[in-house]
Amino acid sequence: MTYDIAIIGSGPAAYSASIYASRYKLSNVILGKIIGGTISEAHKICNYPGLPDISGVEMGMKFEKQAKDLGAEAKYESVIDIKKEENLFHLFTDSQNEYFAKTLILATGTERNKLMVPGEDKYLGKGLSYCATCDAMFYKDKTVAVVGGKNAAVMSACMLSDIAKKVYVIYRGTEFSGEPVWVDQLNVRPNIEVIFGTLPIGFEGEPRLERIKLSKPYNGQDSVPADGVFIEIGSEPNAKMPELLGVEVDEKKYIRVDQSQATNIPGIWAAGDCTTASNGFRQVVTAVAEGGIAANAIFKYLSGVKN
Amino acid sequence: MTYDIAIIGSGPAAYSASIYASRYKLSNVILGKIIGGTISEAHKICNYPGLPDISGVEMGMKFEKQAKDLGAEAKYESVIDIKKEENLFHLFTDSQNEYFAKTLILATGTERNKLMVPGEDKYLGKGLSYCATCDAMFYKDKTVAVVGGKNAAVMSACMLSDIAKKVYVIYRGTEFSGEPVWVDQLNVRPNIEVIFGTLPIGFEGEPRLERIKLSKPYNGQDSVPADGVFIEIGSEPNAKMPELLGVEVDEKKYIRVDQSQATNIPGIWAAGDCTTASNGFRQVVTAVAEGGIAANAIFKYLSGVKN
Repeated sequence: MTYDIAIIGSGPAAYSASIYASRYKLSNVILGKIIGGTISEAHKICNYPGLPDISGVEMGMKFEKQAKDLGAEAKYESVIDIKKEENLFHLFTDSQNEYFAKTLILATGTERNKLMVPGEDKYLGKGLSYCATCDAMFYKDKTVAVVGGKNAAVMSACMLSDIAKKVYVIYRGTEFSGEPVWVDQLNVRPNIEVIFGTLPIGFEGEPRLERIKLSKPYNGQDSVPADGVFIEIGSEPNAKMPELLGVEVDEKKYIRVDQSQATNIPGIWAAGDCTTASNGFRQVVTAVAEGGIAANAIFKYLSGVKN
Repeated sequence: MTYDIAIIGSGPAAYSASIYASRYKLSNVILGKIIGGTISEAHKICNYPGLPDISGVEMGMKFEKQAKDLGAEAKYESVIDIKKEENLFHLFTDSQNEYFAKTLILATGTERNKLMVPGEDKYLGKGLSYCATCDAMFYKDKTVAVVGGKNAAVMSACMLSDIAKKVYVIYRGTEFSGEPVWVDQLNVRPNIEVIFGTLPIGFEGEPRLERIKLSKPYNGQDSVPADGVFIEIGSEPNAKMPELLGVEVDEKKYIRVDQSQATNIPGIWAAGDCTTASNGFRQVVTAVAEGGIAANAIFKYLSGVKN
């Protein structure tokens, strides 16, 4: 069997692409191991219109069910190699399966850079988050910390300072590299306290986060209190697929796409967090839009080829 | 009170912008009369991930509730004038209310196109409609016609075929351009009859619609009987707001936006069906993405200006 589209990834962009593809009567297979992809890590998502206060896991399952009900095949396998053979893509997975498809949608997302500090996994969803935009609202009038010193960290600290009672910013450097407008804000906002030249070395609390242990004493203490910690040290798209396929990426490895989500390689589209689209605003709303746009573009592409 | 953002419109783009804005703690007011905007006319929406098989009205209400729960004010008023006063926008509505806002999001959507055929206004509400979703139920076991050949027309014909006794589809083209899943349905449903290469040139009946005159004979007759006719020939953005504000539009009057949904006028963003974004693919998924991107951009803009 040859699919019209092989969708690599299993996050919101992948499911949306599949939903649109199926409604265009395009056969499609979704190849990904984690239902929902990155959102499966979000303990609560409140900013997706129509599904207020839903866990990432539940959202992923809803999306997947809808895609499958409309005709998608979901395979819980990782693509390990792809070869272009005449007009088809030949995909090989870690389950020793092979698939053929006329077109590809790369919806491979990004992976958060981790601190690699003990307890980081344990507190995920119990005070530790990699996304202030997603989770800031859960810390109204609480004490939080942001780890990092680039734009995402500085912006997150500002956002959190409107919500939380107190915001520590913990940064190993001695000067922020974020946009000046953001950095200025750090100094202006009285409830933000910056701890330079310092790294978190551990997390403590039971059952949720209560304290962050520091690499050197701060105000005579070896830790700061924190109900929440936001690790904002960036994320990176997976570079493997673009390399395999000769797909062009930007300097940060995001896949360059045009308005229709097409990459530089004919027959290959990309959607979701792994792309340069949506003004770099990587959210569920933008992922589902990009998936839909890609499927629509492929529908036009295959219609032109078919007839 | 001065709002951080006045959102003009009450469709998916507006609610998504509001949801994101509220989560950034930006005060916002949603100004629009029809909850859900254009989607309120859709009898079923199946391609929005997470809400399979939902009516447009229900989706609009869900979106609005979520926006209000997060802090939005919703005013069921139409904006009739806007003046720029120093750094604020001063809005006037048809309810003689006035609002002030630091920024604007134009989420004004599109309006349905008219046939411009004699009698079109006369029969409006007397057999002639621009909204099958709204009015189909009045034609149980009757004979109706749908004018048009794109997705909206094809979808409307299918919907009507479940209710009416007979459905003519009158289309000037010779092939439908709707989604294949819908076009297939036209052929499957025995009470749908397609008249290609033909235009309505007039309407007849007293006091209500009884017949549609055709641009060329069909089965030897110059008209087809019809108790109802549904004009489904697309839509156009409303040009009034862009004109009032000096906002740049393209040749089809869609508001030109950059990657951040910003218009050419500082302080004014646009989102949803009224814009040139999302590769011209105007869907709920793209509207919610554009709304989110605009709110994010305004958050950055106001953070730079504030304090």
